[in-house]
Amino acid sequence: MVKTKVAVIGCGTIANSAHIPAYLANAEAEMKYFCDIRVERAQQAAEKYGCGEAIADYRMALADPEVEAVSICTPNHMHASIAIDAMRAGKHVLCEKPAARTYAEALEMQKVQHETGKVLNIGVVNRFNTAVNVIKNMIDGGELGELYHVYVSFRAHRSIPGLGGDFTTKAVAGGGALIDWGVHFLDIVMYCTGDPQPRTVTGQAYCKLGKELEQYTYMNMWAGPPKLNGTYDVDDFVTGMIRTEGPTITLNGAWAQNIGVEEMYIGFLGDQAGIRLQYGKDFKLYSAKHGALLEATPAFQSTDHFQNEIDSFLKCIKTGEKLPSHIDTVILSSKIIQGIYDSSERGAEIAFDQEEARQ
Amino acid sequence: MVKTKVAVIGCGTIANSAHIPAYLANAEAEMKYFCDIRVERAQQAAEKYGCGEAIADYRMALADPEVEAVSICTPNHMHASIAIDAMRAGKHVLCEKPAARTYAEALEMQKVQHETGKVLNIGVVNRFNTAVNVIKNMIDGGELGELYHVYVSFRAHRSIPGLGGDFTTKAVAGGGALIDWGVHFLDIVMYCTGDPQPRTVTGQAYCKLGKELEQYTYMNMWAGPPKLNGTYDVDDFVTGMIRTEGPTITLNGAWAQNIGVEEMYIGFLGDQAGIRLQYGKDFKLYSAKHGALLEATPAFQSTDHFQNEIDSFLKCIKTGEKLPSHIDTVILSSKIIQGIYDSSERGAEIAFDQEEARQ
Amino acid sequence: MVKTKVAVIGCGTIANSAHIPAYLANAEAEMKYFCDIRVERAQQAAEKYGCGEAIADYRMALADPEVEAVSICTPNHMHASIAIDAMRAGKHVLCEKPAARTYAEALEMQKVQHETGKVLNIGVVNRFNTAVNVIKNMIDGGELGELYHVYVSFRAHRSIPGLGGDFTTKAVAGGGALIDWGVHFLDIVMYCTGDPQPRTVTGQAYCKLGKELEQYTYMNMWAGPPKLNGTYDVDDFVTGMIRTEGPTITLNGAWAQNIGVEEMYIGFLGDQAGIRLQYGKDFKLYSAKHGALLEATPAFQSTDHFQNEIDSFLKCIKTGEKLPSHIDTVILSSKIIQGIYDSSERGAEIAFDQEEARQ
Amino acid sequence: MVKTKVAVIGCGTIANSAHIPAYLANAEAEMKYFCDIRVERAQQAAEKYGCGEAIADYRMALADPEVEAVSICTPNHMHASIAIDAMRAGKHVLCEKPAARTYAEALEMQKVQHETGKVLNIGVVNRFNTAVNVIKNMIDGGELGELYHVYVSFRAHRSIPGLGGDFTTKAVAGGGALIDWGVHFLDIVMYCTGDPQPRTVTGQAYCKLGKELEQYTYMNMWAGPPKLNGTYDVDDFVTGMIRTEGPTITLNGAWAQNIGVEEMYIGFLGDQAGIRLQYGKDFKLYSAKHGALLEATPAFQSTDHFQNEIDSFLKCIKTGEKLPSHIDTVILSSKIIQGIYDSSERGAEIAFDQEEARQ
Repeated sequence: MVKTKVAVIGCGTIANSAHIPAYLANAEAEMKYFCDIRVERAQQAAEKYGCGEAIADYRMALADPEVEAVSICTPNHMHASIAIDAMRAGKHVLCEKPAARTYAEALEMQKVQHETGKVLNIGVVNRFNTAVNVIKNMIDGGELGELYHVYVSFRAHRSIPGLGGDFTTKAVAGGGALIDWGVHFLDIVMYCTGDPQPRTVTGQAYCKLGKELEQYTYMNMWAGPPKLNGTYDVDDFVTGMIRTEGPTITLNGAWAQNIGVEEMYIGFLGDQAGIRLQYGKDFKLYSAKHGALLEATPAFQSTDHFQNEIDSFLKCIKTGEKLPSHIDTVILSSKIIQGIYDSSERGAEIAFDQEEARQ
Repeated sequence: MVKTKVAVIGCGTIANSAHIPAYLANAEAEMKYFCDIRVERAQQAAEKYGCGEAIADYRMALADPEVEAVSICTPNHMHASIAIDAMRAGKHVLCEKPAARTYAEALEMQKVQHETGKVLNIGVVNRFNTAVNVIKNMIDGGELGELYHVYVSFRAHRSIPGLGGDFTTKAVAGGGALIDWGVHFLDIVMYCTGDPQPRTVTGQAYCKLGKELEQYTYMNMWAGPPKLNGTYDVDDFVTGMIRTEGPTITLNGAWAQNIGVEEMYIGFLGDQAGIRLQYGKDFKLYSAKHGALLEATPAFQSTDHFQNEIDSFLKCIKTGEKLPSHIDTVILSSKIIQGIYDSSERGAEIAFDQEEARQ
Repeated sequence: MVKTKVAVIGCGTIANSAHIPAYLANAEAEMKYFCDIRVERAQQAAEKYGCGEAIADYRMALADPEVEAVSICTPNHMHASIAIDAMRAGKHVLCEKPAARTYAEALEMQKVQHETGKVLNIGVVNRFNTAVNVIKNMIDGGELGELYHVYVSFRAHRSIPGLGGDFTTKAVAGGGALIDWGVHFLDIVMYCTGDPQPRTVTGQAYCKLGKELEQYTYMNMWAGPPKLNGTYDVDDFVTGMIRTEGPTITLNGAWAQNIGVEEMYIGFLGDQAGIRLQYGKDFKLYSAKHGALLEATPAFQSTDHFQNEIDSFLKCIKTGEKLPSHIDTVILSSKIIQGIYDSSERGAEIAFDQEEARQ
Repeated sequence: MVKTKVAVIGCGTIANSAHIPAYLANAEAEMKYFCDIRVERAQQAAEKYGCGEAIADYRMALADPEVEAVSICTPNHMHASIAIDAMRAGKHVLCEKPAARTYAEALEMQKVQHETGKVLNIGVVNRFNTAVNVIKNMIDGGELGELYHVYVSFRAHRSIPGLGGDFTTKAVAGGGALIDWGVHFLDIVMYCTGDPQPRTVTGQAYCKLGKELEQYTYMNMWAGPPKLNGTYDVDDFVTGMIRTEGPTITLNGAWAQNIGVEEMYIGFLGDQAGIRLQYGKDFKLYSAKHGALLEATPAFQSTDHFQNEIDSFLKCIKTGEKLPSHIDTVILSSKIIQGIYDSSERGAEIAFDQEEARQ
């Protein structure tokens, strides 16, 4: 068996906690390059995992004809250009979420995917999560009846990541709570409801609690520590409503808000049953049958969704199967997120031309 | 001292639990008429309270020159016509919420109020609630800093009232969960945020869980029992987003939904502090000061908000004071609710002409 | 970078649990000497930490020109003489609390500090505690309005340390519950209220429950085991009242008392708000605003106060910054504690000459 | 049997809830006069109890030779003059606590008692309370060993009575929390410890939370409602320390303070055992015996202390027995309370001349 040789570009948290271990655990893959512009991070990885070559310039990996697949784990602003370069160099690409900073960048990536025919999957890892797939199966199987609305909450009290750094700098990340957390929640909704075309999008995004960097009070910080002389110009609160060909969707999300309650859930409302998924955890199914109201707690075997994602990526390279994480599917949530940001600036709802949407 | 003579029109639950006892407890009021088209309900009231005259036709009360004030406690479809007749007959009016079935009806009521100069207050009783006023004082006093968003949840698992009756018949009630519950939540938001003009309204209302009357499963029913041969054509779920001159507002409301959790709250988000009000109960204040996150539980003296409402109504008749429950103020939530219903039908956001809005 | 070489004098509990680990965790410090007259304790430390030299005579460390800083962790009766020797030998000093056995000794230490210009900080570690600093910030920020009284309780049921040993021998420790526990509580009060000059001090100290060593009943003993043939001539209960330029202060403290309740708290009373600090734990803020009484529970990031203390000591050696733990500040609580003991002997209040106090 | 004819002067709360019912329940007493300058209160009492004569001027009762005993239940500023008039008119007197507004007034009362030989008891009702007497018996019986200190807490969050009225007006009441609540707590301490002579008194009284009457926030008010245009010039917080021939005593008391905890207790510290009495409730006895720490909860038959007080008063008139509530005993707490107020004004401790004290 010839192993698929892989380059991981960007050796930060997501690479080390998810992509690299999953490639190493897959018998058909071989880590060939660890790449990071801060080359010491690449070297640390090579040392730690005892394999591969540390490089600073991803073009070295793209120039190597042995490399078949790349994972892009850089900050968001590099997603589009590296993915495009990689596909044009003949590589298959798994690019972390969000696809890109903007819908325009994502469309460009999609265009090159179509031109080159290489795989371009986005790291919407929840599509490989067991609980999410059980929910999708229930909805597809008609368990919920007509699914008319989904409400989404990704609201934390204090959870701004790396204040002042890449996460909170619009030129790097493209946005804040919506593009970083909302993308996951929205993607679960899209996946479970059959990736419906959006019709209208309205929303408002606020940059409030981190704006005065020194005055931001918190208990702990992921992706920290803070850079108090850095930039904070992204949304820490966002609200929005989306009409689709399927259900309507509303969302309220906060990296930070002055409400000391963490509410991370998705509520799927069907006329026969409903589901409340606690993000990253379990879910409950509510129905009414035979005159009784039922609250059901499902149990199932879980598998590691990152491993599933990588395994599926490696497999689809060989089989040509189009995964649910393909750019053609994920492009829709890029469009919606862009719509919310645009609507927020205009102070008005955006209606998509349905004809164009279906092209 | 000459007592203010009062007629209560409509002798159902709200009259018996709130209006009549409050008039009786006010030393300056005297109950003269109990009116109900089902005259036996009027007679029961007259007997029970040992005073007043039972009548079936409210025009008898309006024709009595001694009557100064009327409370309208009928189903919604009678609000406008009785209020208009009463004002034209020279009576001061306290009309239960919602003002009317539609914005058009409410505007007609307002017009007649302006013509006659009589008092026309709407039963937005939360404006006389202690907790709500403490919150308003905190917001007015700058405690929350800039208030940028309010999210509203009035979601119950199973709480459709009087299935098949007045409450669930659009021609009578004008709507369902939004006009019956949402009006209270929205009114609290408007009151606490200074009754800001709405700029855009978008929303979607769904008539789902009660549609097949016999299949509606529930544990108990207020305003019941169900009439299984009755009408059910109102919203049991509603979602919406409103942009105003002040904060944005999002709401998700359900008389019934297939999620077995009751979430009745309003979250006020300010950049300095936030408040989570549990509807009809207490609230918490969240802030950050001196490097600490603070969660504060306020305690205060509560008074009966219905009594306050009636006392204030009787007093303003004499003093001419314009109460916060005046039709001129409450008309705004009528406009917003109408906007949500209209937007739901069109499948698109409605933008109000701001010039017109300020007239 | 040249590391600051440190000698720790006295290798008992406080050295091993706080000073030494904090020096080791500071990249700019290097442990050079572990000193203890019971040299085996010094040797154990050197072995355990794998660095430094074990010595029995602290003068060896003082004679080493490389040593820049010393921590004094001995029993109280050695504080003054070692600190004075160290400063005269050109060393910077961090001396555990209390500064000394008596005010006279503390004044002598201060005098030598002024002569030599070396750092002399006292181990009033709560000044480096996060909760305490949040409280100080709140008070300084005017959150409490006028702060008029502080009541202090450090009352335990049975907590005499090392009965019969150094802690309970006046010639060694200078006192009991007041000088050992009270010093911490009083220091928090002084720090948070701006280190106000005392005007009058009255108090009474009692040596009761441990007096008959064999009859002292207890559940467990810190700094034990008891030496039943040892000395017990210090206060196990103390009460006092202090008038200052700021608030009045009352205290009731017990290493042991026949009341089976542990009450370790400080209550700061302001006319706008109040704070109850549970010693070593969290605090609550009580206020009244907009007609409501508020009870707030603050959350904040805590850091290790011993580490902060050592870090600040090492840093101030380089920067010359005068810390809030400087002898010039801490001398005031020495004066107050002495005042309580003196007042107890005289059975009368002591009034300080304010002119003199301000010199 | 000839019944003792009684006049009750002042028909407010304490008369109606305690004195009058107790006289009525005593077979040897007969209510002859209800007196109140607001004569309608006297008339209400006469009607309610179906006996006696309602009068507005207490001198009418004093002029009636049949009247043997009077209870003085007026506001504090009338205690001295009525008691003196009554004794001079040959009546025996039970005067509500505090004896008077000031020590000078109390001394005047005592002087007239000595001149006339009539009974003058003060309403220190806790001396007739079962729990308090059990404690006194335990202390007298040596159960606690040497009693060296008593700490007293009468601290409430919000409990100012009748804001702006008699209770909060110094010219009427003589003081606030100390004279109204403290008098009871201090009296219990004095009684249980054998009414020891005070040697020194220091204290500080603060008039803070009610000072701006309109800004005082509270949940409910006893002796209310507030008079917002009234007077508030008394202490709502007081602290003090007393040295006596017996134990030292410290107290912290608050009608109102910005600490949301109610702490109403007395802690008696003995070297063999201690007692914590929850005011108006039960107590616990803490001791150590046979190597064990013991926490004991005593149970005993309780009787009504007000009834005991009245019964004892009526009986001592006949027997000539000198009760523990005699002015000669209670004068000491008047002296102490005056001492605290005087010390507060001077900002210094007051030392009593012991020789004089013993005269």
